[in-house]
Amino acid sequence: MTEMTTPSRRQLLTLIGRMGGAAAMYQAMTAFGHAAETQFTGPPVLTGAKPGASVVVLGAGLAGMVAAYELTKAGYSVKILEFQDRPGGRNYTLRGGDSFTESDGTVQKVQFAPGNYINPGPWRIPHHHRCLLHYCRQFGVALEPFIQLNHNGFIHSGSAFGGKPMRYKEVATDFRGHTSELLGKALNAGALDQSVSAEDKEKLLEALRHWGLLDNNMAYTSSVHVSSQRGYDQPPGGGRNGAPTPSQIAGLSDVLDPQVWTAMSFYFNYVMQTTMFQPVGGMDMIGKAFARQVGKLITYNAKVTKVAQGGDGVTVSYKDAPSGKMQSVSADYCVCTIPLSIISQVEMQVGPKLAAAMKAVPYAGQLKMGLEFKRRFWEEDDNIYGGHSFTDQAIAQLSYPNDRMFSKGPAVLLGAFARDLGAFQLTAMTPEQRIEAALKQGEVFHPQYRKEYMNGVSVPWSRVPWILGCTSRWSEANREKHYRNLVEMDGRVVLAGEHASYYGGWMEGSLLSGIDAITQIHERVTAA
Amino acid sequence: MTEMTTPSRRQLLTLIGRMGGAAAMYQAMTAFGHAAETQFTGPPVLTGAKPGASVVVLGAGLAGMVAAYELTKAGYSVKILEFQDRPGGRNYTLRGGDSFTESDGTVQKVQFAPGNYINPGPWRIPHHHRCLLHYCRQFGVALEPFIQLNHNGFIHSGSAFGGKPMRYKEVATDFRGHTSELLGKALNAGALDQSVSAEDKEKLLEALRHWGLLDNNMAYTSSVHVSSQRGYDQPPGGGRNGAPTPSQIAGLSDVLDPQVWTAMSFYFNYVMQTTMFQPVGGMDMIGKAFARQVGKLITYNAKVTKVAQGGDGVTVSYKDAPSGKMQSVSADYCVCTIPLSIISQVEMQVGPKLAAAMKAVPYAGQLKMGLEFKRRFWEEDDNIYGGHSFTDQAIAQLSYPNDRMFSKGPAVLLGAFARDLGAFQLTAMTPEQRIEAALKQGEVFHPQYRKEYMNGVSVPWSRVPWILGCTSRWSEANREKHYRNLVEMDGRVVLAGEHASYYGGWMEGSLLSGIDAITQIHERVTAA
Repeated sequence: MTEMTTPSRRQLLTLIGRMGGAAAMYQAMTAFGHAAETQFTGPPVLTGAKPGASVVVLGAGLAGMVAAYELTKAGYSVKILEFQDRPGGRNYTLRGGDSFTESDGTVQKVQFAPGNYINPGPWRIPHHHRCLLHYCRQFGVALEPFIQLNHNGFIHSGSAFGGKPMRYKEVATDFRGHTSELLGKALNAGALDQSVSAEDKEKLLEALRHWGLLDNNMAYTSSVHVSSQRGYDQPPGGGRNGAPTPSQIAGLSDVLDPQVWTAMSFYFNYVMQTTMFQPVGGMDMIGKAFARQVGKLITYNAKVTKVAQGGDGVTVSYKDAPSGKMQSVSADYCVCTIPLSIISQVEMQVGPKLAAAMKAVPYAGQLKMGLEFKRRFWEEDDNIYGGHSFTDQAIAQLSYPNDRMFSKGPAVLLGAFARDLGAFQLTAMTPEQRIEAALKQGEVFHPQYRKEYMNGVSVPWSRVPWILGCTSRWSEANREKHYRNLVEMDGRVVLAGEHASYYGGWMEGSLLSGIDAITQIHERVTAA
Repeated sequence: MTEMTTPSRRQLLTLIGRMGGAAAMYQAMTAFGHAAETQFTGPPVLTGAKPGASVVVLGAGLAGMVAAYELTKAGYSVKILEFQDRPGGRNYTLRGGDSFTESDGTVQKVQFAPGNYINPGPWRIPHHHRCLLHYCRQFGVALEPFIQLNHNGFIHSGSAFGGKPMRYKEVATDFRGHTSELLGKALNAGALDQSVSAEDKEKLLEALRHWGLLDNNMAYTSSVHVSSQRGYDQPPGGGRNGAPTPSQIAGLSDVLDPQVWTAMSFYFNYVMQTTMFQPVGGMDMIGKAFARQVGKLITYNAKVTKVAQGGDGVTVSYKDAPSGKMQSVSADYCVCTIPLSIISQVEMQVGPKLAAAMKAVPYAGQLKMGLEFKRRFWEEDDNIYGGHSFTDQAIAQLSYPNDRMFSKGPAVLLGAFARDLGAFQLTAMTPEQRIEAALKQGEVFHPQYRKEYMNGVSVPWSRVPWILGCTSRWSEANREKHYRNLVEMDGRVVLAGEHASYYGGWMEGSLLSGIDAITQIHERVTAA
């Protein structure tokens, strides 16, 4: 942390800005601890590539496509092999008319009305994911706000509030109020006099009184004042009946339910913090934008069976699905973005360290459901526009659509984002049973559910044939032992993808790992 | 609070939904404490009006226009007199080409690029302002999210953090962390054993550990874990350099600065809670939408000088500004929405109680400034998309534009939203001095300010000729003494506007007061 005073820092930055423009300013600000928000400081600079140097990329997800895009720009000759018949990988979107086949052959036809969609994979973009935002800007992907924290969303716990869903604003205010009252009591009793200076004690008591909405006796009690955060029984209005009436606070025991502070902490999370974004029209707008750049390099329906390497290059064997014929591609280097969950299906000629790392990382099996309703009752009846409602049931959460708010007609909400045990439970069901479970559980929040329901689709990631899992899940022990081995180039092969990053499950991680992978190749090429 | 169990409540609501549809459901849910978010349950039902009954409305702001709209729908004959040459009142927007004249004759020409604007008056709409949202829906006013809480906005205090602006996420995390650690200490020392049951104590310690990101010793210390909320020195990335490094937490004394908890509490405020909205293209889209309905009833440039009433009607005298001629309008009733700050200029024939109430309420003199810059450096360099940065300087806050994020070219941010002393200071300056002050103060956050600045405009509400103030400011004592007298019909005259509501300064208050005013007239008419 710099010891410089504010004025001289400012003067210096102004000077830097005048001399060097925005990029220099950004670097300087980062040095001052002002904007260190990403590993990304701009697209990779791959100057001095040998003409004709070639790379084969396995997988046309974001990691593979950004690698191909930047390599091509730098003068490399690139080919991409993709298992599916479309680009994007987990960056995809289901719309009416699409169908989805699980690994056991179960088929679901999506029946959403035109314009409605669900993003089964990634669905939100943090404001600090500068690498992803860079490519969205560059490729003209239109973004709109993804409402994350919605104070009017619900929190439901079977073991608190008599099972009644509460608004976020209610439980968050009560949590702050009760804990402030308790800390105030301890301070006033002198219990913390050895930990807090007399001056800080006074400041803290003042802070708690305001922050926790405490009354003159430093108690958290129902009042119009408290209602100015937790909401009213009757909110302020106009004319003769304009006076508000207070709501009744909940007790300490209820707001200590783990569901309450888990939900509050969720919104504090760095990768979950507002402002967030989504592409207008569906997340696959990003994958499609990349494919507009590198689509002509992609061979679709190519099931990779073997990656062989030697001193002079890499040979990748694959089966062309339509013809069933075996084919091969040779190149100087290979970027492999195939998920670790299915890489065991590929014969990989790599060293023991990388081989061990590839086997070490388990995948989580999240499940998402999109439910279409006749109208936006969550907006019209419940004043909920975007954001989430959380529950300790299997569905875990509802998320309300962020696009076309206030519009009439059918709309799709995320009716489940199940993890862990909840995902196992729902995945084990038939698609029809999953819908029934989602309706039954979601009714806790919205009694309108049954009346307004039209159709739905569920995507259990552990049964998605081309990945058999959703996101890599690194333990700290595995990171320690295997991460470095996983991401370092092995001969002429280097891995990329969200699993090759500290941003597991985030597109930013895929892109940054893709850039580091080609940076390693380029370092090798230019060092040679 | 109902004692019913969740399933039977749900079953009942489902039944109600099947029988009565959405409106019945909404009513029922409100009864269950589910959705009591507004005094508004739908537009007023004014059946049985006497044909030809007439009302003159003073002022074509939102209160006056909603009154005229609903009265006309019900069969009343309505005329509106408006002082200005446009509808909307404080609901307005300044764009390039507009000019703004202060009460002392000072003229500012707005130089913004096409599409850029500033809303000098109301500028954000809470999700629970159902009355306003109802009319936006009905009149087809397109809305977009107004980003309120932005974890990446700055908080600046001259007396904390050595004057260095901090990100909201940093100070909010540190505040929670330090207070959690202290409360944990007090609990573990047994200091609260008389206030908290043994079971709750265990639950609370567990809650604090997670919510406050405490370490195994229940201490708040710098770590990657803490950085997962307050941000990193180097955030997670991909490939070889993917491992994050932690940021350094601030000390307790700094986060106890009032600027910190004031900013945090601001976001908790019921009327400030996410999700919020703004009209696409400028706030005056709402005033214009109302004017599309009632514009033909409005006489513009009409300066009301006298409101006389007797047993059989009301006569309003006004000066037609272009001709200078005195005119008058007679009607059965009058809705007066003229702000209390200038109503002393009108000879009002009302009883002593209303007369006293009209004199009792002072107005606040906020000041707003719009600054246009060559590019969105706050987005491009600082990762700030919408939301606010707060300071204890006179400008009080910056607010970043919520429209057309990621776009290229000039953009306007709110460079000051000064209240109280800060507003006095800035209002006393010339427009050029205000700009200089705003640039100097705003530079604390953004060293790019000087380099990127293009032009700006300031609106000191206490010098806006047609109101001489911004919003009514009721004290509790005044409410007690005068509110009821202000909003109750006096003979054939009834007042409306934000000042006649408990939502001072909010459009919802104006609309609800306008609806209550015409409800009073209608009750009188139909009772007669």
